[in-house]
Order: sequence, then C-alpha cells, then structure tokens
Amino acid sequence: MGEKSKGYLLLIGGAEDKSEESDILRKVVSLSGERGACLTILTVATKEPEKVGETYVKLFSRMGVKDVTAIDIKDRQDAQKDYIIERIEKSTGIFFTGGDQLRITSLIGGSRIYHAICDAYKRGVIICGTSAGASAMSDTMIVDGDGNESPSGSLINMAPGLGLLEEVVVDQHFAQRGRIGRLLTVVASNPYVLGVGIDEDTAILVNSKAVFTVEGSGTVTVIDGSDIDYTNVSELAPGDPLALFNAKIHVLSPGTSFDLSSRRPVFNKT
Amino acid sequence: MGEKSKGYLLLIGGAEDKSEESDILRKVVSLSGERGACLTILTVATKEPEKVGETYVKLFSRMGVKDVTAIDIKDRQDAQKDYIIERIEKSTGIFFTGGDQLRITSLIGGSRIYHAICDAYKRGVIICGTSAGASAMSDTMIVDGDGNESPSGSLINMAPGLGLLEEVVVDQHFAQRGRIGRLLTVVASNPYVLGVGIDEDTAILVNSKAVFTVEGSGTVTVIDGSDIDYTNVSELAPGDPLALFNAKIHVLSPGTSFDLSSRRPVFNKT
Repeated sequence: MGEKSKGYLLLIGGAEDKSEESDILRKVVSLSGERGACLTILTVATKEPEKVGETYVKLFSRMGVKDVTAIDIKDRQDAQKDYIIERIEKSTGIFFTGGDQLRITSLIGGSRIYHAICDAYKRGVIICGTSAGASAMSDTMIVDGDGNESPSGSLINMAPGLGLLEEVVVDQHFAQRGRIGRLLTVVASNPYVLGVGIDEDTAILVNSKAVFTVEGSGTVTVIDGSDIDYTNVSELAPGDPLALFNAKIHVLSPGTSFDLSSRRPVFNKT
Repeated sequence: MGEKSKGYLLLIGGAEDKSEESDILRKVVSLSGERGACLTILTVATKEPEKVGETYVKLFSRMGVKDVTAIDIKDRQDAQKDYIIERIEKSTGIFFTGGDQLRITSLIGGSRIYHAICDAYKRGVIICGTSAGASAMSDTMIVDGDGNESPSGSLINMAPGLGLLEEVVVDQHFAQRGRIGRLLTVVASNPYVLGVGIDEDTAILVNSKAVFTVEGSGTVTVIDGSDIDYTNVSELAPGDPLALFNAKIHVLSPGTSFDLSSRRPVFNKT
C-alpha cells in the first residue's frame, strides 16, 4: 500500500463548513502553502462550474490565498489543453469539487491532465476532493446506489476511479444519507478493499505513509472485511438481502488516526 | 443468557407486509397454534388502539385464527384488571403493536399484566412485537434518537425495557431510518449488550436456546462490541462525535441464524 501513497490526500465527505472558520478548508489552505499557495479548483464534476468555482475561489481568497483559480473541463478535449496542464504543473494544491464522480473519471481519466495530477501528487502536492471529488480518488469508486435500504445485491453501481488511493473504497455523505448498507455490500464483494465512509463536514487527511487523520465535525466509519467468513454476495439476485458474517467496524472521531496498511486505528491520538 | 430465554420471541422491525401472504404474520399464526390459536393483540403502544387493533384482528382472522382479539391498556389501572389477566393466561400468542415503547413500559411495567406475560413466555407462549413492540423487549431499550446522523454523544435516550430478552438492545426500522449510528453509540456505552438492528418487514425469531433466525424480506445487523479496545463515549459532550475502535458487525439475511450466547452466526443455515 505505502508504495503509491507518495503524497497527501484530503478527502471530504461533502457539505463542509464554508465559513471562514472552516477547519477543513483552512487545512486545504495550510497544506497548499498558506498565502503563497497556488491553488487550483477543478469543477469537472459539476454541471454548474461557474457558480461552484466562484464559491470556492471567493472562500479561499478570503482565507488569504493570493493565487487561486477555478478551471472547468467540459469535455475530453479540455483535458488535453496546454494551459490547464501548465496550471496543474505549478499548483501547490488541487481541489476537486462535488458533482458526479462519473464526470470526473469519464472526462479526465487517462488524459494529459490526469497524468499531470498524478505527477503533482507524487511530488507531494496536496490533492483534495469533496463529495464526488472524494469518491473518485480510489481504484474503484461507488457511482450510485440507494441509502437507507437493507444491504442487498442491487444496491450499487461501481466504476474505475482515479486510483490515487489504493485498496480503499470511499463513500461520502455517509451517516447523513444512511450509506452503511451499500458500503457493506462493496466490502463483501471484495474484502481486499477497505470501506471508508466519511460523514458530511468531515475529512480524512492521508499522509505519505498511508495513515489518515480525521478532520472536521463528524465521524469516519471504516469497514474491514479481512475476517469475513461467510457472505452470500455472489449469489444475490437484484434486491436480495445481503449476508455477511464477521466484519470489523471502526468509528473514528476528529483527531483520531487510522493506518491503512495495517488496517488498525492508531492509538496515540493527536 | 440461555437461562431466561425459556420461550419464543418474534421481534419485527416494523412495517411488516400486511397482505395475507405475509411471511412474518403467517409465522405469528403458526407459532400461536394455527386455527386453534388464542391470539391477543396488545395495542398499549399506540394512541390509535381501535384502528391498529382492528387492522391486526382482521388480518389474523383472514389467516384462519378463530380466537383473536385486541385489548387496549390506556392506563396503569387497566394493567391490573382481571379480565385482561384472564385473557393473557389463556393466550397461545401475544402480539404487541407499534407506537411508542415508553407507553408500553410505563403503562404495564411491574403490573399484573406484565407478570402474566412473563409467565406466559416461560410457559412457551410466543411473544411478538413490531416496531416499538420489538424495542420494548430488551432489558434496556432505545426510546428515541436521531437517524442519519454522525454517531455522537447525544444521539439516544434509553429506558428500562420489559426484560424478556437479556444482554441485547434491539433497534427497528433499522436500515430505512439510518440507525446504525445510534446503535453503535449504545454498544459503545456498554459492550456487554449486543446491538441488534432489525430492518422493516424483517424479524428475528428467538428460540428457547437463545438462537435467533431471520424471517421476512430485509436484513438484521448485529453489532458485537466485545473486542472494542477504545471508545471516547464516556467523555462526550452532547453532539460530540463518537470514536469506537474494533467492533464486530454481522449482516444476516432471511434464513440465517445467530447464537446470542456465543455471539456467533450459525453456519448450517436452514
């Protein structure tokens, strides 16, 4: 795991506090280099790029960032353009807004901008994403699926994600939209992946050693399927209820940490 | 555990199928003695006892039960009345409707009818409860608390329950109302109790050996806190996010069974 986690990721469960006192957005600023940051907002996920971009540009400007700009990518041609690549190359922080995670991957997957983002990540540039922007970071991502339903065979659509975070599937708006069922179904489908459910106004900051710390005001739920000794997930017709015996669940509050490699909470809390 | 579980309990997560084909209500009929059953509907939980009582009486009559009647208990005086005690004493099945679990315990707790129900249970009479009627069965019951919220210090109010099911806390409408957070908080508050979350149109049938089998169309989620090695639950101010490391979670589909004494799913499924 630690192999690919060269840089820093900040994955936000959506609906983050957007006041100037926002712990999470302040973290974006400090990890991007404070007033000297070169911060790029990528609005590719949303169909309202101007409105969403402007919100974040204003917010980060008010927090003291001099060089912050929103860039939209509306088709795969945009994702190859020189001026965008150049912007990514000089960015010290990159922030994916919310929207639809399938827009992110289908528009930038495999493009020049995608490779520029991977290079930036490896150089240590902080890559941030909120809501859809957080979901898109893992190898395989959840595209959609109902919340507040019994865990079942037809609960979720998945697709290949950006792959910045390996062996993990991230879900967002987690408690607020009752998404434990769909995350359990994902983990049952392949216990190799760790399920990470991030509540609203809550984030995980993943460091280069694949240890994350929780930021914000809610909780992060981790589902570890390593010890599952029975599941019926491969036999389910759509809508059939899931069975899954013996998974592990951790609930992490702000300030607590979790080691993605050993799959253990870290006890000496900050 | 097995000590007190002399009889049979059928706990339903609410919103059970009310057609004549209902698996769960058919189970009530068969365990009460089919056409020869003497079935008593207790509407104490609801403020609409006539309407709710009539619904179940009609339904069970249509399923072939000759002797089915609804009895309301509107105050603690009712809970001492001879004719109600006599009815309980000859019942072969007792069914608590939904409503407010605090009405059940505050109106019948410690009364003659309560003791008559305990005696019936020990004789092997099936005791059923749906929604509030299911919640009220455990030693300590959840009274209320928000769903779809980050697990936190202020999520739940609890009260002493009827005590027919020991060492367990039951929650209902579980997936549909996003109640995993409040059940995790309860288990963190005392890992001695096992958290059992029952989805709508889903039930657990607990036998005299404290093994339950899942009935209906959804899932049952079991939270086992035996191995929790850290929680902050005792330090939380209202609304503070919960931390809880290393709980176990089982998702059970209809037909699967769970042994409440050993806290293990039973593998030879029926």
